[in-house]
Amino acid sequence: MTETGLINGNAVIGQSGGPTAVINQSLVGCVEVLKESAHVDKIYGAHHAVDGIIKGDFIELQDLPQDRLDRLANTPSSGLGSSRLKPKAEHCHQMFEQLKKFNVRYFFYIGGNDSSDTCRIINEDARSKGYELRCFHIPKTIDNDLQCNDHTPGFGSAARYVACGFMGDNLDNKALPGIKINVVMGRHAGFLTAASMLARQQPGDGPHLIYVPEAAFDSDKFLDDVNEMYDKHGRCLIAVSEGISDADGTPVAVKLAVEQGHHVEKDSHGNVQLSGTGALGDFLAIHIKNKLGERRGEKLRVRADTFGYMQRCFAGCVSETDQREARMAGRKAAEVALLGDLDGSIAIQRASDDPYKVEYTLVKLTDVAAKTKHLDEKYIVDGRDIHDSFRTYLAPLVGPLPVVEQV
Amino acid sequence: MTETGLINGNAVIGQSGGPTAVINQSLVGCVEVLKESAHVDKIYGAHHAVDGIIKGDFIELQDLPQDRLDRLANTPSSGLGSSRLKPKAEHCHQMFEQLKKFNVRYFFYIGGNDSSDTCRIINEDARSKGYELRCFHIPKTIDNDLQCNDHTPGFGSAARYVACGFMGDNLDNKALPGIKINVVMGRHAGFLTAASMLARQQPGDGPHLIYVPEAAFDSDKFLDDVNEMYDKHGRCLIAVSEGISDADGTPVAVKLAVEQGHHVEKDSHGNVQLSGTGALGDFLAIHIKNKLGERRGEKLRVRADTFGYMQRCFAGCVSETDQREARMAGRKAAEVALLGDLDGSIAIQRASDDPYKVEYTLVKLTDVAAKTKHLDEKYIVDGRDIHDSFRTYLAPLVGPLPVVEQV
Repeated sequence: MTETGLINGNAVIGQSGGPTAVINQSLVGCVEVLKESAHVDKIYGAHHAVDGIIKGDFIELQDLPQDRLDRLANTPSSGLGSSRLKPKAEHCHQMFEQLKKFNVRYFFYIGGNDSSDTCRIINEDARSKGYELRCFHIPKTIDNDLQCNDHTPGFGSAARYVACGFMGDNLDNKALPGIKINVVMGRHAGFLTAASMLARQQPGDGPHLIYVPEAAFDSDKFLDDVNEMYDKHGRCLIAVSEGISDADGTPVAVKLAVEQGHHVEKDSHGNVQLSGTGALGDFLAIHIKNKLGERRGEKLRVRADTFGYMQRCFAGCVSETDQREARMAGRKAAEVALLGDLDGSIAIQRASDDPYKVEYTLVKLTDVAAKTKHLDEKYIVDGRDIHDSFRTYLAPLVGPLPVVEQV
Repeated sequence: MTETGLINGNAVIGQSGGPTAVINQSLVGCVEVLKESAHVDKIYGAHHAVDGIIKGDFIELQDLPQDRLDRLANTPSSGLGSSRLKPKAEHCHQMFEQLKKFNVRYFFYIGGNDSSDTCRIINEDARSKGYELRCFHIPKTIDNDLQCNDHTPGFGSAARYVACGFMGDNLDNKALPGIKINVVMGRHAGFLTAASMLARQQPGDGPHLIYVPEAAFDSDKFLDDVNEMYDKHGRCLIAVSEGISDADGTPVAVKLAVEQGHHVEKDSHGNVQLSGTGALGDFLAIHIKNKLGERRGEKLRVRADTFGYMQRCFAGCVSETDQREARMAGRKAAEVALLGDLDGSIAIQRASDDPYKVEYTLVKLTDVAAKTKHLDEKYIVDGRDIHDSFRTYLAPLVGPLPVVEQV
């Protein structure tokens, strides 16, 4: 189908799931292209994703001047508001009914793999009802765990936060030596925790140990690891994914909580709450203090920080590559919608490492939906470190880091 | 005494206490000026402050080229290493003996009020032994709690971290509404927590509540406050100092820990550990979930982050004003030492608000030593907020913040 065969109507854009530092870039990229099309009348932003679409709670974006769009693109978090609701088929049907009611012919959903699945169901509804709707998913997740993508918008900026945090904390830990644990987001995928390795600039720099959810965590071996690094460096800086689990799949936070005599709280889905609490870091700190302290016969100084929500929205910490690519992903989605494609998900592929180049492709919604990508095991060293070769993959996504000098 | 009357000898510079993003600026400023003097031969940096001085563990800095000095100045944390030891008189005597042994005639100690006291004792030793030693304290603390200073080097950059963190988290909390607590450093002084107010750019922006150690914290009133803001905004972003205490002076972390059935851990000084643990935030979150949740008859979404060590050394988050002033404080200390003064502490005074101007003065060591400055009560509103007039004081110290756009 060519552009001349396009049906005229309105567009809706939604932002779902956890915010990122660049999700508004994708929103703006999409708006910029749609504004130029004669086939698109209103460009609606859906307030709070599925919640707003079901209610028809829309804001009109087509008249926003370019300077406001540019500022919005540079603003962290989801400007339209987001939702924690993972839509069931029933919600998707309700969403479709509202889209039809508003004569929406172009639908864009920025989010993780759940959002891709939402697009798929709405799209199937539209087809079965003979309603022409173009349905596109625009990738977003700081976890970097979407299939078919070399990496995802949002990850580079979050990884930059993690790398800058560890750079500073490595120097802090060097100035006042001790054992320090930093807990990084990532329930199932270790990409973000692995990004801590970028903080290493000189021999001896931390993090000295990195634990990701892809490798089974053994709390006894952990003590051996810490002991070894503490002997070697006189200090030990540790990166830990919030989602680390033991060989049985039991989250370490749960295991240590029980071991240390605590009550374990679960959320409404029965998952143990891992973000927005300092529990895992504190449990690991106590584990080291008590058990390794006893073994070594000394009082160990152990502290833990949990990076928390700062990783996804800290104002002013953003990767320029990530910004540019998120904007382009939004533009591409609008472009393919206006060029004849009916549905799909925009994917970022790496064309070359040196010089760093990417290309944007269109993949099937079903290939992205409800699947998780994991950190390649080739990068995981002995279940406790990340190989230096990960730098080739990661560095261009994060951009140049601050230069430090050590005397 | 004029420069021609100066005694020739070596210099020692030390960095004490918690690292900051700009403490190396002060080190470099001091080195730059000393390098130019014909009276100073070696410029020693003391490794790990008092620990290194007692052992004579020095590194020579006089030959570092300017490009390395400039990079070092821009590097967060204490490049020479620091120490947690608060020197007793006995340690100060040992320090003095080593300084004498190394023919040190110029001594500079960068740190908080403990460091000023260390200078004072060493200086008294030198006088009583008839040994000419020039002893200067260079201020540093993210807590901003030194007497005789309008503000201290290190604070502006830490405040910038807090402001940028809250800016992003306000947008995050707006996108996914709930109750969010962020715990900020500050055991006795609330300046850093108060800096969260800079994140407010539009009506309704958080933080909606700010609690500092200077105001007694009432855990029942706290629930009323949160309830009110949650009703008003449909969400609630809260800034809390790690050091908040109730009217009896009991730390809130301790009170809630006991109330929630936990064991309370104390450090070697008998203080409850407040940094490097997520406990206070988690206790407050549980307090709200359980008690306010019950009162409202709904399951509340409450999360807590503890900003932790990122506040003092996050790489790439720095106030240019803070950098410049820290450098100048180091230069001034060296300049006064070479112009006839025997001892003192460099203090930063504000000369005018608009345009923002400061001047550097020399104050007595005893006026700074072992005293803590508190947030002026005129800024504290109803024990739960910071007055907008604090912005006049704070904004120039933090520098221009990222621009955000809300739709």
